[in-house]
Amino acid sequence: MADQRFFVNAGPFTLAQLAELAGAELSTGADPARVVKDVAALDQAGDDDITFLDNRKYLAAFQASQAGAAIVHPDLADRAPTGMALLLSKDPYRAYAKVAQAFYPRPKAEPWVAPTAYVDPAAKIGDGCRLEYGAVIGARAEIGARCHIGPNAVIGDGVVLGDDCIVSANATVQFAVIGRNVYIYPGARIGQDGFGFAMGPQGHLKVPQLGRVIIGDNVEIGANTTIDRGAGPDTVIGAGSMIDNLVQIGHNVQLGRGCVIVSQVGISGSTRLGDFVAAGGQAGFAGHLNVGMGARVAAQAGVIKDIPAGQTVGGTPAVPQMEWLRQSAALNKLVKRKG
Amino acid sequence: MADQRFFVNAGPFTLAQLAELAGAELSTGADPARVVKDVAALDQAGDDDITFLDNRKYLAAFQASQAGAAIVHPDLADRAPTGMALLLSKDPYRAYAKVAQAFYPRPKAEPWVAPTAYVDPAAKIGDGCRLEYGAVIGARAEIGARCHIGPNAVIGDGVVLGDDCIVSANATVQFAVIGRNVYIYPGARIGQDGFGFAMGPQGHLKVPQLGRVIIGDNVEIGANTTIDRGAGPDTVIGAGSMIDNLVQIGHNVQLGRGCVIVSQVGISGSTRLGDFVAAGGQAGFAGHLNVGMGARVAAQAGVIKDIPAGQTVGGTPAVPQMEWLRQSAALNKLVKRKG
Amino acid sequence: MADQRFFVNAGPFTLAQLAELAGAELSTGADPARVVKDVAALDQAGDDDITFLDNRKYLAAFQASQAGAAIVHPDLADRAPTGMALLLSKDPYRAYAKVAQAFYPRPKAEPWVAPTAYVDPAAKIGDGCRLEYGAVIGARAEIGARCHIGPNAVIGDGVVLGDDCIVSANATVQFAVIGRNVYIYPGARIGQDGFGFAMGPQGHLKVPQLGRVIIGDNVEIGANTTIDRGAGPDTVIGAGSMIDNLVQIGHNVQLGRGCVIVSQVGISGSTRLGDFVAAGGQAGFAGHLNVGMGARVAAQAGVIKDIPAGQTVGGTPAVPQMEWLRQSAALNKLVKRKG
Repeated sequence: MADQRFFVNAGPFTLAQLAELAGAELSTGADPARVVKDVAALDQAGDDDITFLDNRKYLAAFQASQAGAAIVHPDLADRAPTGMALLLSKDPYRAYAKVAQAFYPRPKAEPWVAPTAYVDPAAKIGDGCRLEYGAVIGARAEIGARCHIGPNAVIGDGVVLGDDCIVSANATVQFAVIGRNVYIYPGARIGQDGFGFAMGPQGHLKVPQLGRVIIGDNVEIGANTTIDRGAGPDTVIGAGSMIDNLVQIGHNVQLGRGCVIVSQVGISGSTRLGDFVAAGGQAGFAGHLNVGMGARVAAQAGVIKDIPAGQTVGGTPAVPQMEWLRQSAALNKLVKRKG
Repeated sequence: MADQRFFVNAGPFTLAQLAELAGAELSTGADPARVVKDVAALDQAGDDDITFLDNRKYLAAFQASQAGAAIVHPDLADRAPTGMALLLSKDPYRAYAKVAQAFYPRPKAEPWVAPTAYVDPAAKIGDGCRLEYGAVIGARAEIGARCHIGPNAVIGDGVVLGDDCIVSANATVQFAVIGRNVYIYPGARIGQDGFGFAMGPQGHLKVPQLGRVIIGDNVEIGANTTIDRGAGPDTVIGAGSMIDNLVQIGHNVQLGRGCVIVSQVGISGSTRLGDFVAAGGQAGFAGHLNVGMGARVAAQAGVIKDIPAGQTVGGTPAVPQMEWLRQSAALNKLVKRKG
Repeated sequence: MADQRFFVNAGPFTLAQLAELAGAELSTGADPARVVKDVAALDQAGDDDITFLDNRKYLAAFQASQAGAAIVHPDLADRAPTGMALLLSKDPYRAYAKVAQAFYPRPKAEPWVAPTAYVDPAAKIGDGCRLEYGAVIGARAEIGARCHIGPNAVIGDGVVLGDDCIVSANATVQFAVIGRNVYIYPGARIGQDGFGFAMGPQGHLKVPQLGRVIIGDNVEIGANTTIDRGAGPDTVIGAGSMIDNLVQIGHNVQLGRGCVIVSQVGISGSTRLGDFVAAGGQAGFAGHLNVGMGARVAAQAGVIKDIPAGQTVGGTPAVPQMEWLRQSAALNKLVKRKG
């Protein structure tokens, strides 16, 4: 299904192969030797394709699907169309991720330095790197093995990149120490000065920003996202965190491991998020807050005080989710009564 | 009025010429042969200029204007200063657009390939294209006739651009099939991976994003806006849609024809907007929603359920506009009573 | 403390030197000849470092600090650990800014033109400029003395830059006249077309954007921020204004002197802000408004009408701060009573 202009299919695979790599169980009656040629969406899959059902909103599409095979939660197995081979998994989306990665592994970038790339003589470039047209690598930068630096991307003086990183087209990275397997999307801005100055009627006076950006392994940083470096302490992004597009992360912010920050979120200076905090789109955090491990913040919420570990909050100013829902309901009732 | 450093005036025109190209009617007593040399704002226009009145907020400025001529709705003709020649139009802003386009047509980019532009030998470049310094065109890309690729812009492998497109400085386009006369502003990011992964305490697992971005004819995509490619289905932007700066459009989103999306709006994955939907600045849409044709969403609204065609909504969570206004009023009253 | 990979320390200084340049008073008993080697955060400073206390939230950290010296408000002098030398200042953050600037002055960029930079023959480049790899300077541009144009930054035809400006990596500037000592961060987009078109079912018709962007002296423009040029009038950013990352400023907007605009704020077309207006993160302004001098807008507020000078507003739609707090309290009470 994937457009061959852009994607190369590494299949086919047998159902048995797919079940094994996905950690899924093949349903009774399914032929382990059956050949699957591609992945496809529920409504586009045909007899040679494997699809998946993760969101119950698409149950009807699942029941109408022409897919030869599907990955599905065991509880929903009996809702499948007759004849569809099933890969049963308690985490069907994760199982699908593994299957799709098998069909479409990330293409390897051939080692190469484009003639218009510039590498400072005092930079170190690891084995197997690929530097595209117009890429610029500053003095004393240390680029790990097998990194891929996109066209017109700019890596500043002294920056450290671990192995297997991708810095996409037109992104900029400065004052940063970055781990392994970090993926920086096009146009992301990492390491510029934080928004720090002493305000005053005689003019705002800039405060030198003397920290760095420290990024752990396996992080993704979305397109046009901005992460300022620390003012003195560092700005820290914990390993495995996923950051979407157009997110703002202020100076001295610390994210724990595995945080998920959806598009257009803003996190003000010196706020700390524990491990596995999730923030919905356009949520905002005031500065100098502590957000506990596993806390969840609804989209567009405005967080102005600390959040305990595990709590879900919503609204502006953000309150525990149940309270926020009750506020909305009460307001609605008030209007209806008067209306 | 326009600064000659930056703009070249193609005038002058007579009032008769302007009336014809604007589809407007010349007011009684105005001399069709009168020469107009430029367009100008109400408060800056002089005797040789033509101005316009569209927003009633500026009625006083209209009445005080020194402009020799003005485009105005017939209903407001009697509010004009004496001696001002009028072009009467029921859509004065559209009429002004035509007049201003006549005075200041978009400059033609001379065909050329800059010496530091890179074009992959396996790319196809249409007749009359202009590729600026540092532009990069990937393998098998197909660029239509008369396209203008700005300095340091990057077009990825396999991308298709129709005729007469502009990709501005430092923009990036990948995994995309784009129609005719599409204008991509500086720093826009089109076609990167969507924000798709299976979350889990053992680490978030990336789901390959196997769709494309499909953009119809006559679309504009604002500066630093991000449009992710589909996860399997495509992300689709309908013909004639206007997208402002810093907008986020997630994977699998579909916009109909003629949508207007104001700055900093975020549209989450798999949400579909019908034709001519308008979204005010900073509005947010949750994922997997259906927004009907002609629906209007107020600035900063948070849309979390489907919107029927033609409905106007506001607030977070978004409700029909009248209800939202009543909520604000009720809340205000409650406070005033207790205050 | 600052990482020597990235920062060069211009110290040491004596306490007497620091007190003088900070305009601070040395506390009784402190040795003016004592040598200070670096600045450091409260919890990281040692005997040779100077730190500062500005936010009372960190009073405990101040009391536990191992710093040899600290800048602090006279009122808090008696809370200092024994033995800590104090620089007393009524504006400790501003005093710290001066001290930190002494230790870490902005590095001077050596005059140079990179071999892959492109300068149009009809551009004028001032003395002492540095143009990095891939920078592009358009025809008739006028670049002041000692400007630093970053890698892959693009300056359009006719743009004027005053002395001592920085245009960082991958930023773009067009249709702009810019003062002295202006700092444009990576990926900022200045001067593209405003979002102006006549809407209609037969297609939206583009209105030529015939104004410029005028930027005063000593302005900072954050990473990936977008500032559209005027539609006819100019877009104006007053001297000394500080604009954070990912801010949107629409066409014809005027900012007075010394405005502070935090990340992800959006200001719609033709709105005017007086001098020293401050807007918190993610706040939004509708178009055609007047915001008086010194007004303050809370984070995430939605401003839909004029704000008098000096007033603080919050909420959506924004109301005076006290009213907004009362609204939140009333809503909360309503829920608690019913809950």
